[in-house]
Amino acid sequence: MSQQVRVTVWNEFRHEKESEHIRSVYPNGIHTAIGEGLGAEVQVTYATLDDPEHGLQEEVLNNTDVLIWWGHKAHGDVQDEIVERVHQRVLQGMGLIVLHSGHFSKIFKKLMGTGCDLKWREADEKERIWVVAPNHPIAEGLGEYIDLPEEEMYGEHFDIPAPDELIMVSWFEGGEVFRSGCTFSRGQGKIFYFRPGHEAYPTYYNEEIRRVIRNAVFWAKPTTREYPKYGNHKPLETIKGRG
Amino acid sequence: MSQQVRVTVWNEFRHEKESEHIRSVYPNGIHTAIGEGLGAEVQVTYATLDDPEHGLQEEVLNNTDVLIWWGHKAHGDVQDEIVERVHQRVLQGMGLIVLHSGHFSKIFKKLMGTGCDLKWREADEKERIWVVAPNHPIAEGLGEYIDLPEEEMYGEHFDIPAPDELIMVSWFEGGEVFRSGCTFSRGQGKIFYFRPGHEAYPTYYNEEIRRVIRNAVFWAKPTTREYPKYGNHKPLETIKGRG
Amino acid sequence: MSQQVRVTVWNEFRHEKESEHIRSVYPNGIHTAIGEGLGAEVQVTYATLDDPEHGLQEEVLNNTDVLIWWGHKAHGDVQDEIVERVHQRVLQGMGLIVLHSGHFSKIFKKLMGTGCDLKWREADEKERIWVVAPNHPIAEGLGEYIDLPEEEMYGEHFDIPAPDELIMVSWFEGGEVFRSGCTFSRGQGKIFYFRPGHEAYPTYYNEEIRRVIRNAVFWAKPTTREYPKYGNHKPLETIKGRG
Amino acid sequence: MSQQVRVTVWNEFRHEKESEHIRSVYPNGIHTAIGEGLGAEVQVTYATLDDPEHGLQEEVLNNTDVLIWWGHKAHGDVQDEIVERVHQRVLQGMGLIVLHSGHFSKIFKKLMGTGCDLKWREADEKERIWVVAPNHPIAEGLGEYIDLPEEEMYGEHFDIPAPDELIMVSWFEGGEVFRSGCTFSRGQGKIFYFRPGHEAYPTYYNEEIRRVIRNAVFWAKPTTREYPKYGNHKPLETIKGRG
Repeated sequence: MSQQVRVTVWNEFRHEKESEHIRSVYPNGIHTAIGEGLGAEVQVTYATLDDPEHGLQEEVLNNTDVLIWWGHKAHGDVQDEIVERVHQRVLQGMGLIVLHSGHFSKIFKKLMGTGCDLKWREADEKERIWVVAPNHPIAEGLGEYIDLPEEEMYGEHFDIPAPDELIMVSWFEGGEVFRSGCTFSRGQGKIFYFRPGHEAYPTYYNEEIRRVIRNAVFWAKPTTREYPKYGNHKPLETIKGRG
Repeated sequence: MSQQVRVTVWNEFRHEKESEHIRSVYPNGIHTAIGEGLGAEVQVTYATLDDPEHGLQEEVLNNTDVLIWWGHKAHGDVQDEIVERVHQRVLQGMGLIVLHSGHFSKIFKKLMGTGCDLKWREADEKERIWVVAPNHPIAEGLGEYIDLPEEEMYGEHFDIPAPDELIMVSWFEGGEVFRSGCTFSRGQGKIFYFRPGHEAYPTYYNEEIRRVIRNAVFWAKPTTREYPKYGNHKPLETIKGRG
Repeated sequence: MSQQVRVTVWNEFRHEKESEHIRSVYPNGIHTAIGEGLGAEVQVTYATLDDPEHGLQEEVLNNTDVLIWWGHKAHGDVQDEIVERVHQRVLQGMGLIVLHSGHFSKIFKKLMGTGCDLKWREADEKERIWVVAPNHPIAEGLGEYIDLPEEEMYGEHFDIPAPDELIMVSWFEGGEVFRSGCTFSRGQGKIFYFRPGHEAYPTYYNEEIRRVIRNAVFWAKPTTREYPKYGNHKPLETIKGRG
Repeated sequence: MSQQVRVTVWNEFRHEKESEHIRSVYPNGIHTAIGEGLGAEVQVTYATLDDPEHGLQEEVLNNTDVLIWWGHKAHGDVQDEIVERVHQRVLQGMGLIVLHSGHFSKIFKKLMGTGCDLKWREADEKERIWVVAPNHPIAEGLGEYIDLPEEEMYGEHFDIPAPDELIMVSWFEGGEVFRSGCTFSRGQGKIFYFRPGHEAYPTYYNEEIRRVIRNAVFWAKPTTREYPKYGNHKPLETIKGRG
């Protein structure tokens, strides 16, 4: 219990290099802002698209309990081989937190099996994220809702499988709603999708948003348990046939 | 309502050609036995692996309400391009019923996002399929359980996402259990996985098994409704910002 | 299949008698407006609070496939004995559609096991009901959302168990969201909770609202199937112990 | 995190007094065997049916994080007022673990809203409990299954709402299956139903069974968070109507 959770924060890290405005919001990259919000009980590593193997070498993933994923404009640049590697690690138990525009990442789509499309709009509008599963560990310590004065809008229909648990629903000034906090289980891995975090707004400095991500890290960390055995299985009881 | 449901039954159709024993059980192929069990309200088309485009040309799929899938030893021979085509059609609303060893088919794995592995054993043993969601339309007309005197065993852990609805659970003589009737939704498509149907046993002649598949066809047929709109979305309400 | 579904629409029917304004909206009672929207394939019976046994005599319930429930200010006047009778019928397979302020009815609370409380406000504000499960039969024929120019607000947290399926989520002008279309299963019975329908607004004349209720009737109607057997059960297999 | 979880173990405690055989299995009562299995991180209190207020005084419940419930032959002797008190505490966030024959307790039925009936048989038969959700915290540290050489049989259909999460499924020697580990959420409270534990067998001394109950205690303990606000709610945004 006293052991630290090992988190790798992955960021595409292109907007910050290419746009002065985005850089002014996240001077050290979105990943750093996310990592700094995770608190002392978490051991943070950073990885970005332009690192060798996108920073997701076998060794890095094997020492990651929970991977946080932020990507947007360069999903196509993520190599399929690395996506496959991350996918295998999730199935083996690594937690995965997919943020905002990561809904369209290869890894999220591969885990969901759906198109993961949605409505969107960039209009500096207000978002209010309501907690609808208040006793879930991911909602621990939160108020009834989180107000974000300016965010990108994401609207339904969100093309995902029905989440195992729906934790939060967003209200948008322009008239839409969105399932903003969703849990899924795939193989031994636990997955949390969390909507907010457009690159142009300082969302990842917000203390409540940070609290959600931190809660999700502890929720998503792997259990300690043997991997299930698959394949040919000897009978545990006598069978009357050729057993 | 009086309109027939259009079903395409897809079968790998290799065992029946290669093994005299399997051919003696299903002389016209597993697909025919499945199709003949669907009843008069269903319009059946057949397609097999060795047909051109595996019998799943665009036109065939565009005229299919529900696709039934049986495959086992040649999953790898199904072309990725056809898998992609079927996937798109499911996301657009075509129902999909995956039978038995189809758990390892490319299309099922792609829709689930998991490994879809399980325990198995061929030992001519008894299976008893218990209904655990008796008010579900897929259980309509069934008794409390279905007894199959000889089947292949499939055992937990079954590496799928938690099903939207768990309809049936199997008991096996050798000591295992299995989630045998599971529903999933992906995009606009409804999916039903149904466990029984090893090629060496006459399972698809069993009237109760046929009833389940027939029920599933009516459950999985598409609703009539506009496809959701995705992408950039104009505000429905006035936004104070640059809205 | 060609058989009509037998629906009983239950209405408290007090607002209409006591308030001139409400009577002007629903001159023949809310129940009549609901019943008239159900269409030709449905055989409608009406029952109200002030009828003998609230109009829910054993014979009426035994001949009801789906019960629709609207109540608001007089939940406490519904006799416990009748609530118990309705509860038993739902567990035996009768469908139940609970509308709007019925969230606080004795029967809904008894079936949910929770407090069923929520936030509310009467302010003639706009509601927009978004479909989040577009392939569900209850959403058949609907557009992406339903706009209601004036409705009472209901806001989260809505104190219900996590619904089996979440079909619709409401956006409110004043800044709240609500899980507005929820399915549940209890015993053999299927239950649909649908939010809109404050007595002061002509909501039940809205064609899309009527479509939802009509879809829900067909979704909730009982399956034809033996009731499960409970209690002492003889072994189906040989037991080595005293079996 | 270092704080102990406060657990109250409630036992009907009648079998042990009335039957020499049961007393020989559980000389100090089933509650003591359960409590001793909870380990050092749990602070245990005991309460039994024949204590004043069944040992569940307001003060006891207000200082209970998780209540464990074992009852069988005297469900009817539990006063409705105390059931109501426990129900309120669960809705406010107290965890509840219902064991074995507690499926028919007033509190479980009240929380489920269903009949909670099942098939049963006392025949000294083998039970094998398979883990079907291996990455759930309640399954932490377990093997693939738990073997119990002699137990009472419980068989499907189990008349509960579809569980939020299905963790375990039992196989019985006599041919039945059962959903043996089920989670539910009601209000702020988390509920775990766990099947094994007939009074005539030493099940609660089994280390794996104890591990499940201990895991469930940590899973079910309340989150620290404000209770949601219900009732009349002022608008958070400007409403064009009379707002």
